[in-house]
Amino acid sequence: MLIAKSVRKLEAYTPGEQPKAKNVVKLNTNENPYPPSPKCAAVLKNFDLDRLRRYPDPVFTELRAELAKLNGCKPENIFVGNGSDEVLSVAAKTFVEDDEAIGSLDPSYSLYKTLADIRNVPWVGVDCAQVRKFDDPKVSLFLWTNPNAPTGVFAPKKQIAAFAKKFKGVVIVDEAYADFAKENCMDMAVKRGNAKLMVMRTFSKSYSLAGLRVGYCVGPVELIDAMYKVKDSYNIDALAQAVALAAVKDQRWMLKNTAKVVKTRAWFAAELEKRGWDVLPSEANFVFAKPPAGNAAEIFTALKKRNVFVRYFSAPKTAERIRITIGTDAQMKTLLKYI
Amino acid sequence: MLIAKSVRKLEAYTPGEQPKAKNVVKLNTNENPYPPSPKCAAVLKNFDLDRLRRYPDPVFTELRAELAKLNGCKPENIFVGNGSDEVLSVAAKTFVEDDEAIGSLDPSYSLYKTLADIRNVPWVGVDCAQVRKFDDPKVSLFLWTNPNAPTGVFAPKKQIAAFAKKFKGVVIVDEAYADFAKENCMDMAVKRGNAKLMVMRTFSKSYSLAGLRVGYCVGPVELIDAMYKVKDSYNIDALAQAVALAAVKDQRWMLKNTAKVVKTRAWFAAELEKRGWDVLPSEANFVFAKPPAGNAAEIFTALKKRNVFVRYFSAPKTAERIRITIGTDAQMKTLLKYI
Repeated sequence: MLIAKSVRKLEAYTPGEQPKAKNVVKLNTNENPYPPSPKCAAVLKNFDLDRLRRYPDPVFTELRAELAKLNGCKPENIFVGNGSDEVLSVAAKTFVEDDEAIGSLDPSYSLYKTLADIRNVPWVGVDCAQVRKFDDPKVSLFLWTNPNAPTGVFAPKKQIAAFAKKFKGVVIVDEAYADFAKENCMDMAVKRGNAKLMVMRTFSKSYSLAGLRVGYCVGPVELIDAMYKVKDSYNIDALAQAVALAAVKDQRWMLKNTAKVVKTRAWFAAELEKRGWDVLPSEANFVFAKPPAGNAAEIFTALKKRNVFVRYFSAPKTAERIRITIGTDAQMKTLLKYI
Repeated sequence: MLIAKSVRKLEAYTPGEQPKAKNVVKLNTNENPYPPSPKCAAVLKNFDLDRLRRYPDPVFTELRAELAKLNGCKPENIFVGNGSDEVLSVAAKTFVEDDEAIGSLDPSYSLYKTLADIRNVPWVGVDCAQVRKFDDPKVSLFLWTNPNAPTGVFAPKKQIAAFAKKFKGVVIVDEAYADFAKENCMDMAVKRGNAKLMVMRTFSKSYSLAGLRVGYCVGPVELIDAMYKVKDSYNIDALAQAVALAAVKDQRWMLKNTAKVVKTRAWFAAELEKRGWDVLPSEANFVFAKPPAGNAAEIFTALKKRNVFVRYFSAPKTAERIRITIGTDAQMKTLLKYI
């Protein structure tokens, strides 16, 4: 057979729908409703096209330096990927032997299982209530999304610290949504003596740059170095390096937008609760909510007919709820009209 | 151990140097000396930044359609990667079992060995003179660079067709330099009944877009489909999709620049020969040439001191020659002054 066995049986990851129509209220893929920093626009307007003629900086020196400054570490502590997707696939290769496994919370980001499938190793899902007792010696990489998706629930740092201490392998805390949360684990990743905890961040959510594909992780030099050996030689293009650099330098813009989202989240969750919905406490840019009539799938479909896109996960642990990205106040009001 | 065994022993690929200084004559990484199409500049100037807020099209519909039109096939025959690097790493995962191997010509693009190392399978190098007799049942993916690098030599299509017919696995003809050559294998990749030959192309060379990271391959739907299952969900960012689309639509610009490079190549090779160098017949945007005094390494170093960067590969099969990218006439004249 021309195609490898593990690929033949692979079910591809299904990303959230990207509807083409313009009049859609798109609350299904946790994108930021506010535009990226105008500094990014300036980069594009003034970009010297001749830079594209040459290969990009393979180790994104400037971007790394700025990310190091932001996170209180050295550039050597930072790996940047073509989206967190690439950070994850490089980690799956770097920290997992062929006979080991990848673990994560269950429910959590549904890509993790696909990631394990592509890596051709088992995926071990751990119920959030059972994670304290987790002890599977086969798992060498644990991906802990915090705040979690699709729930939005935030695990206390202490809990993650205790887990990482006990766990034998590498822990990556996927903090895609951390800028919308009250606290985060970055200090643990940059702490002296830390040998195995990494924190992953993305430009897709708080920086409004999902279309740019830049994610990064912060951790011990030894682990980061190993990841550099595995990545494609020139994994971040010159434009993405420049635009991401401008975005990270404009912290004020990012903080202003995340503050707006957090405010809308509180108001919107309260509105849902007034209508009898059960809303999990969210520290992310979405809420995971159960309709009073228990008809999550129906509501998902009904909203779609109204051009309001939210996300529904039909697995048993998630089927009672829908995940609603926090958009603008106006978008949330439109949704509230239809439920 | 936290880091996988195969990664610990891995030697990272060494890309050609990217000197920071501005006054360098850079003839070391086969970049195009002419700028990308002005249509690409227009895309950047007019890019609606709000598009970056959303995830990019995961299957790059427009770009694929345009590439299909260009190459006389259907969009379903086309896979696009974050540079040919990603096309290759996805292929190494898709078409190679853990106990199989990756083959290529030797000498050839030095990344292939690293690719096999990262995939944790053996790399089998085949001397160009021996490739007719090649018969290693372990090799399930054969990467045939044509024109070859670093030699620039073009293998007749018939030879590749005969090889692909006999070979049991998938053959990818890496045509990174095909736009500088008299012919190419694209018609074989899009031929009815072809089940295992693919052709890979890049925007890095003829389109002057090495900084953008876009490569693609063309082949049978069944193989292409399998590659889509393995790739990262959103592997090409929205900017790269738009810029590459503009570039591919401006064939006239690309053809004009490649014609200039081909003309300079002929003149420059003749100049080297006048000086007693042995120049392999090149169909690429570089020449692989042996100095009359047999001191390739010395010349490489001496040129570097003059801020003229070329490439030297110290392996036994390549150590007698240097690889010189074809730049502008002025750049080549500068080099000729120093040898």
